[in-house]
Amino acid sequence: MHAIDDEYYMDLALQMAERAQGQTGINPVVGAVVVRDGAVVGLGTHLKRGTPHAEVHALNMAGPLAEGSTVYVTLEPCSHYGLTPPCAERLIREKVARVVIACEDPNPQVAGRGTAMLRDRGIEVEVGVLRDRAVKLNKMFIKLITTGLPYITVKTASTLDGKIASRTGDSKWISNEASRSIVHTMRHRHQGIMVGVGTVIADDPQLTTRLPVPGLSPVRIVVDSTLKIPETSKVLTDGLAPTLLFTTEAADKTKAEVISGRGIEVIPCGPGPKVDLRLALKELGRREIASVLVEGGGRLNGSLLEEQLVDELVMFVAPKLIGGPEAPGSFVFEGYEKMRDAVSLSELEVSQIGDNICIKGKPVWAESLGMDESTSE
Amino acid sequence: MHAIDDEYYMDLALQMAERAQGQTGINPVVGAVVVRDGAVVGLGTHLKRGTPHAEVHALNMAGPLAEGSTVYVTLEPCSHYGLTPPCAERLIREKVARVVIACEDPNPQVAGRGTAMLRDRGIEVEVGVLRDRAVKLNKMFIKLITTGLPYITVKTASTLDGKIASRTGDSKWISNEASRSIVHTMRHRHQGIMVGVGTVIADDPQLTTRLPVPGLSPVRIVVDSTLKIPETSKVLTDGLAPTLLFTTEAADKTKAEVISGRGIEVIPCGPGPKVDLRLALKELGRREIASVLVEGGGRLNGSLLEEQLVDELVMFVAPKLIGGPEAPGSFVFEGYEKMRDAVSLSELEVSQIGDNICIKGKPVWAESLGMDESTSE
Repeated sequence: MHAIDDEYYMDLALQMAERAQGQTGINPVVGAVVVRDGAVVGLGTHLKRGTPHAEVHALNMAGPLAEGSTVYVTLEPCSHYGLTPPCAERLIREKVARVVIACEDPNPQVAGRGTAMLRDRGIEVEVGVLRDRAVKLNKMFIKLITTGLPYITVKTASTLDGKIASRTGDSKWISNEASRSIVHTMRHRHQGIMVGVGTVIADDPQLTTRLPVPGLSPVRIVVDSTLKIPETSKVLTDGLAPTLLFTTEAADKTKAEVISGRGIEVIPCGPGPKVDLRLALKELGRREIASVLVEGGGRLNGSLLEEQLVDELVMFVAPKLIGGPEAPGSFVFEGYEKMRDAVSLSELEVSQIGDNICIKGKPVWAESLGMDESTSE
Repeated sequence: MHAIDDEYYMDLALQMAERAQGQTGINPVVGAVVVRDGAVVGLGTHLKRGTPHAEVHALNMAGPLAEGSTVYVTLEPCSHYGLTPPCAERLIREKVARVVIACEDPNPQVAGRGTAMLRDRGIEVEVGVLRDRAVKLNKMFIKLITTGLPYITVKTASTLDGKIASRTGDSKWISNEASRSIVHTMRHRHQGIMVGVGTVIADDPQLTTRLPVPGLSPVRIVVDSTLKIPETSKVLTDGLAPTLLFTTEAADKTKAEVISGRGIEVIPCGPGPKVDLRLALKELGRREIASVLVEGGGRLNGSLLEEQLVDELVMFVAPKLIGGPEAPGSFVFEGYEKMRDAVSLSELEVSQIGDNICIKGKPVWAESLGMDESTSE
């Protein structure tokens, strides 16, 4: 049991924000707790883009008790008129006494203006309580708002010898049921799910979110340089979630038209022969898709890694050895000559899920490390 | 802090036994603690084959205080004249009151006779305190005495994509320094260290134990079906530890003689083209080598795995992705067609060593699982 202090209430605000992950689109997830005279009097979380922010829900719940209260909020209150009026103004109007904030809003339209507004009106403001957790929670929002590109999580499920299928292509099942449930939870929390056309041809997957309770299915994104996708594929025909196809200008125009005619967006990215993946991610950012879960296969994973487009890796490893030098690996790319040039993972987290091992981390490229070193000279 | 009870003293006996691992040859490691009137009065551990057993050292230290004492011993006291007289007789002669034993001796010459002798003379005997730890500690001794084959530990150091080197063969360094220290500790604790000739040609390793304090170097064992080993290899010339070569009857007899002439044992196993590994392990067992640490490469690891000759896997995984479909993997073998036929690991243990992941387990073959099922019908 955590003793009561600022972190005690901020933790609750973060828990509420976390549970809304996946339903706020490109908006951040935010939680707010209003405390007065030693008791919680208001709770709120931002539920959906275009609807009230967390502070507004929490202040509504508190009613007249908001006056003189302390408001805990996981993200700096907004200072501008977006789709809703500024929360900083509302906090001032309610005459709250103190505002505790986990992290600043990286949105250049806010970025410190919210806290400045509050302080100007004599409200005590504290920033940085459980900041790391809050930043991590909004990594997707932060990536999009600062770069225009979605946050890319590559998920793999492999054997101990790094294979995603046997030499004959059999992959049922590598990971255990608990791991697969976590993957579906990850799908719910991402706006897009991306696969290469090889996976569609081999498995004809639905790419929807399937859990014991209803979840949200992400937009399905298929990378298919030559439009090899079978027209009968589930992602093109089942209507369970929107689908979007990335191809090249070299792809068959007639087939592109047929597919488009069915309401599937077909987006050429570059002249070919391969899809220009950086361009594709820019197109996703423009379409307000802030987060993409990549579920392979090995070639797509390898290309994204090689082009330094991956923000996070989540690898589920089953305690199995399948063998077969020609069995497909989780990352297929040309590879580096020297071990010191290998991509390494920072912020490593290792956990056990039953007999599966889950390895998470953020890729760091030796090349970019070298660049950092030279700029620091 | 553990409250004082039988486990409290047995834990100490096990700790002493554990630290002697690597120095008792084919003998088990054993620890003993003598307690009288609430105080430790004797400590002992078996140090080396042919020298006194743990109980003898501990009783010597206790002197006249042994009478009426409780003796904690990690392995059932011996009942037969081996290289030293039976410990059960000595315990009876000293008039100890109670003997607490962690596990029975699997040696068919003892196997319950030790405890029977004690009970017959009115000594209270309890068996099974911390049994699992004691059994694990003597897994190598148990394997040799029950099967005639040494205990085989395969150790690998790979990237997250299962590679033991880059496509150009570069492998310096995959694992971190802390992991490499653990590997040298493992070498100290094994009687033999085995590599394929490819590793000797590529790296010309010493295969000795190198630690901040002196350690014991295992017998070096090279698997080399056609005697391709360079005559200038360190393992043939540096004299730092004995070396033993496994080859086939098809290998060049003249080269075999030259190498034998230098005091290196050359043992043909089978007609070829590959070394008959089961036969090779039998030869090691006959030479009283109870434990072998296999340090690859991928082909030797793969062959041992395929032939179901591996008792334990210890995989060090560095948080790196090196790529290159042709870069060598940690287990090179034909592979299974179906994922359900993959070798799986039981008794999985996962730990982090700095930024390295250590995965331990005992391989279970789907084939042998199937056999178990059919015999139980």
